[in-house]
Amino acid sequence: GAGADNDLYINQAIVFIEDAIQYRSINHRVDSKSLWLYRWYYSRTCQWILSFTITVILALAFVEEPSSLTVTSDVRYRLPAWSPPCGLTESLELLCFLVFLADVSVKSYLIGWKEFWKNKWLMAYILTLIVSLTDWIVSLSFYCKESVRIRRILRPFFLLQNSSMMKKTLKSINSTLPEMASVVLLLAVHLSLFTMFAMLLFARTKDNQQDKEWVAYFRNLPDSLTSLLVLLTTANNPDVMIPAYSKNRAYSIFFILFTVLGNLFLMNLLTAIIYNQFRGYLLKSVQSSLFRRRLGIRAAFEVLSSLRETPASAQQSCVSVGALLQVLQKAEMDSRCKQAIMRSLKMYSCDQLSAAQFQKLFEELDKDAIKQHPPSPEYQSHFMQKMQFAFGHPWFGYLGNVVALANIISICVVLVMDADKQPSERDDFFLGAINCFFILYYLLEMLLKILAMGLRRYLSYPSNRFDGLLTVILLILEIATFAVYGFPHPGWRPEFLGLLSLWDMVRLVNMLIVFRFLRIIPNMKFMALVVTTLLDLVKNLRAFAGILVVVFYAFAITGIMLFQGAVVPLGNTRRSKAEFPGSCAHISLWSIGPTTSMTLLVVYCLLCVHLICRWAKIYFVAWWLISSVIWVNLFVALLLENFIHKWDRRCQRESLSGIEYQRTVELMFRDVLEEPTEEELMEKLHQHPHLQLCR
Amino acid sequence: GAGADNDLYINQAIVFIEDAIQYRSINHRVDSKSLWLYRWYYSRTCQWILSFTITVILALAFVEEPSSLTVTSDVRYRLPAWSPPCGLTESLELLCFLVFLADVSVKSYLIGWKEFWKNKWLMAYILTLIVSLTDWIVSLSFYCKESVRIRRILRPFFLLQNSSMMKKTLKSINSTLPEMASVVLLLAVHLSLFTMFAMLLFARTKDNQQDKEWVAYFRNLPDSLTSLLVLLTTANNPDVMIPAYSKNRAYSIFFILFTVLGNLFLMNLLTAIIYNQFRGYLLKSVQSSLFRRRLGIRAAFEVLSSLRETPASAQQSCVSVGALLQVLQKAEMDSRCKQAIMRSLKMYSCDQLSAAQFQKLFEELDKDAIKQHPPSPEYQSHFMQKMQFAFGHPWFGYLGNVVALANIISICVVLVMDADKQPSERDDFFLGAINCFFILYYLLEMLLKILAMGLRRYLSYPSNRFDGLLTVILLILEIATFAVYGFPHPGWRPEFLGLLSLWDMVRLVNMLIVFRFLRIIPNMKFMALVVTTLLDLVKNLRAFAGILVVVFYAFAITGIMLFQGAVVPLGNTRRSKAEFPGSCAHISLWSIGPTTSMTLLVVYCLLCVHLICRWAKIYFVAWWLISSVIWVNLFVALLLENFIHKWDRRCQRESLSGIEYQRTVELMFRDVLEEPTEEELMEKLHQHPHLQLCR
Repeated sequence: GAGADNDLYINQAIVFIEDAIQYRSINHRVDSKSLWLYRWYYSRTCQWILSFTITVILALAFVEEPSSLTVTSDVRYRLPAWSPPCGLTESLELLCFLVFLADVSVKSYLIGWKEFWKNKWLMAYILTLIVSLTDWIVSLSFYCKESVRIRRILRPFFLLQNSSMMKKTLKSINSTLPEMASVVLLLAVHLSLFTMFAMLLFARTKDNQQDKEWVAYFRNLPDSLTSLLVLLTTANNPDVMIPAYSKNRAYSIFFILFTVLGNLFLMNLLTAIIYNQFRGYLLKSVQSSLFRRRLGIRAAFEVLSSLRETPASAQQSCVSVGALLQVLQKAEMDSRCKQAIMRSLKMYSCDQLSAAQFQKLFEELDKDAIKQHPPSPEYQSHFMQKMQFAFGHPWFGYLGNVVALANIISICVVLVMDADKQPSERDDFFLGAINCFFILYYLLEMLLKILAMGLRRYLSYPSNRFDGLLTVILLILEIATFAVYGFPHPGWRPEFLGLLSLWDMVRLVNMLIVFRFLRIIPNMKFMALVVTTLLDLVKNLRAFAGILVVVFYAFAITGIMLFQGAVVPLGNTRRSKAEFPGSCAHISLWSIGPTTSMTLLVVYCLLCVHLICRWAKIYFVAWWLISSVIWVNLFVALLLENFIHKWDRRCQRESLSGIEYQRTVELMFRDVLEEPTEEELMEKLHQHPHLQLCR
Repeated sequence: GAGADNDLYINQAIVFIEDAIQYRSINHRVDSKSLWLYRWYYSRTCQWILSFTITVILALAFVEEPSSLTVTSDVRYRLPAWSPPCGLTESLELLCFLVFLADVSVKSYLIGWKEFWKNKWLMAYILTLIVSLTDWIVSLSFYCKESVRIRRILRPFFLLQNSSMMKKTLKSINSTLPEMASVVLLLAVHLSLFTMFAMLLFARTKDNQQDKEWVAYFRNLPDSLTSLLVLLTTANNPDVMIPAYSKNRAYSIFFILFTVLGNLFLMNLLTAIIYNQFRGYLLKSVQSSLFRRRLGIRAAFEVLSSLRETPASAQQSCVSVGALLQVLQKAEMDSRCKQAIMRSLKMYSCDQLSAAQFQKLFEELDKDAIKQHPPSPEYQSHFMQKMQFAFGHPWFGYLGNVVALANIISICVVLVMDADKQPSERDDFFLGAINCFFILYYLLEMLLKILAMGLRRYLSYPSNRFDGLLTVILLILEIATFAVYGFPHPGWRPEFLGLLSLWDMVRLVNMLIVFRFLRIIPNMKFMALVVTTLLDLVKNLRAFAGILVVVFYAFAITGIMLFQGAVVPLGNTRRSKAEFPGSCAHISLWSIGPTTSMTLLVVYCLLCVHLICRWAKIYFVAWWLISSVIWVNLFVALLLENFIHKWDRRCQRESLSGIEYQRTVELMFRDVLEEPTEEELMEKLHQHPHLQLCR
């Protein structure tokens, strides 16, 4: 009947508006039951369960055999890691798979059969699940004794498919690949031509004294290639040329030419290409988010406009204020926004809303939340007012910074004096007394500030929260120290008592004091700019970080499979079997510098047998290309993009410095974004696979 | 009289137009004698003498004591370098100083007294000359025995002051310094806070087994600082953390945090800042060049317009065609441009030129020279026409590439097979025969191409010139080989005869064949783009390269002074006294990777005594900051700038691919350049210190 229809329309509008708020696509089923399922699927609980399941399945590797979740990494001292009985991790895995099965079924149902066949991600999801389950059955039928477990390499896929940002980023990276491949091809040509030159230049001679270069680096084709590849990362930079250079200085021309062409030109060309590709990346993604939001709101308008049985004017569809109020009350959204929209809705004199008015109402969603600090308390007494003025003044904050600096310097002086002393000669009195004094000052500063600003205003500044929290922790530590070890006096070196020795307590206090010194950051303009850029970057980098985790995980597992038991403990070498957290930590460390990966390649090749060495070479070169070359360049590109936007806006911001905004990426680009036109929106709406619009 | 006046005006116009062509400033004296001096000073001979003098004075360091211009760099085998008698290099130096004195006097006279006081570069020039001459006198009075020679460090200044591009670039770098200093300050804060953390974390403990980290890297403040500074360059990346990591895996968090913050964020921030600053650098410099050109032409117009005794119309000044023709005939300019201007001048029906018409005439200077290849010969015979079609077709070129590739592969196969053979076991027959065949093919290809295209058209393509030259050299080498060693036959291993052994000849031929393979570059679109970008970059980088030479030179000389005789030969160590070309080569090698500089720092500190070590530290950290951090980032910024401009223009270019342009930087930016307005030009003209305009 009409009532059921009306309910359906209202529900559709609610879901569309929620889609708009979350920047979700509206291309899902819109019948009553599907809408209920949809809202349930995107409820906090469901999404939380899904994220938790993904975390669990990824974390399993830390306890599965081979694992190395031990304190020390030194095989000589370390206790064997706990190995779970067969079936424990496997049953956890099965639970996760069941959740994923439910997830994929709901997702497939909601987007509909026709859309399902077009969605490659969902197909890949199902395929991954099938392969994983098969592998799981094989694993159980071998009583967990088989070593090659394909499903482990597939695990990061579950993380990947759950984030639309990561999928988008991956698509973007994918479109850069052809150009990156060209540069990598150029690098390969460069490398092979120079390898031939090198083999011709540093050939074997009759005199054994003369062909040191040949013996050490250019013995045969694989050796020469490796030497020059490592030179490309500058890991063996002066060493590789020293024998030739000491024979004839002119040989250095070869190496300089190779390094300048390869390192300065081609490598930086890669940066240029990636930057060029990602220049518009942020803007494009924000633009498409905006489109999704406008589309969701427009869809809500359209379904609400079909609510009215008799259209008042044939030309223009419109929406009654009552229906919108009903929708707003049921939709889940930020309470501040909801109130603002309701407030402006009440100010409308007319009972009907046009499409433009409807969109305008929801522009509240795009607005900055202007952060207002609670007011300071108003004191009656003249003395208190003076106190408030004095301790609320910025100069009091600067004084605090100066005191913190003095504290740091005193710690530094003590450290330098104590650097070479035996632990038994150390006297903790001086530092103890000084720190006691400084911590009292910090407490006093905090209390005075609270007095001047009021507790709520004090806590509304992040720098104060940071400051206050550290001061409280310092105070607790200091009180604990005095309770256990008594007050400081000359020769204050009591024996070990309680949880931590006095020396450890003092070190901890000192570290916290050094950390507390970071409160100066907001006081320095350039530093504040840099730090806010970095924080923004971290927000925008989440998708990249996710992809990095995926790559890390896959590489760590592959590394385990390749090198399992390959490197036997050899005297004082530290690595034995490849194990999960170990591998993970290693590759994460080695990803930091190209140099390190290559040093490691050389180390591996010295340690291990020939067959493994070849695999190790391919593995580490791939790792170097992906982590150091591509990922670092992506990072540089994003940093450039973010920083240049920030920098351009700095002047503009400074004029408004009185008001603090809670800035999001969307807002950073607001003035360059294009509003989608009505035609675009309506065209998209008519392409909706499940929604039949009246007109 | 009026005739003399007219001559002066004509001469002024000639000089202003020459200024416009060379993008020079027009702010110089404009009386007859000064104009003559000015044209003489900027004549090719004079400028060539000046450049030659600068080259000579810079090159002196290669023969002066301490010099190491020897073949080998190994002190054990090397003969003592030739040391010139006292007074030889000194008299050469005096000659150079005299040339510089003349240069500075002429320059100062030409810009005039008032301008001289505003010109800091000229003052610095004079000061440098005075200091150098004083130092020279001191040197001679000590009979060249004194070791500290300040004038050597000052030498690169002569290079710097002679190039306006370098001065401009330096100004630009200078304006980036405050922001760079902020980041360097941030880096310093980062480094010092983490040093304090590290000293607190890795303190000395009672158990000697446990404090390996302390012993090796964090013994005291300077050690800790050095360890972390070197970690910032990733030179000691895995090593520095291994002792702590093997004690407790959690320590790796400290190192990862330090590296990610320092290396990924702060270092790349420096790139971002420098890129942001230099984004508009090229455009701005091209814009100011354009302004100088328009100003010069306008100035010529103004002086020519005062030539006419009776102004025809009071409002508009204009210039007679005859006067302009007179000026054009005397001015030195590209003959193509001159002819084009004359041609369009003759097409004017009117006898008088307005300012706009005058400017328009000289727009020919800004235009691309469209490069036209000479036509192919037209053969009468049908057979010849078919030949011409076949061998002029691109497919014939591709076939040549395939043959070159086959040659490379055959050389590669022989190299791999011969890699481990003793020189006495080697048989040169196979390679000799194969290369003989391939070189004959190359010769045939060249001749057929010349037949098809005609010699002039063949030579008009750079790739053909490259190809042809190498083919001719290869042919000569092959004929020489056969003349000396006979034709190849199995077991072709004749004794050493003549200048080079057969083996060396074969190697040389092979290297040239590998080098010839680069002819494929223009055939691959992406490669061609990259190579043209790199060539453009090299053009734009001349100023940067000059500044780099200046910095290199200064650092090399400082290094010699600091480390002279400091490092004594120690067993098999290779470095003894610091010497000029040695130092120069070393620092040039070490500038390539940050890693290397820091490895070297560690090596130096292991080798040398404590006092020297401190100097070495400061020296190498400064060198690392300047060469690796700042210069490499500048390079990246310019590469990004160039590449992105090129990339944007690629599609546009492809449509015009039929026409080859001789592109200059100015032309790359033409569509974004702003033409200066008439008011700006006239205002600038009225500020001219020596030119009195009538109106």
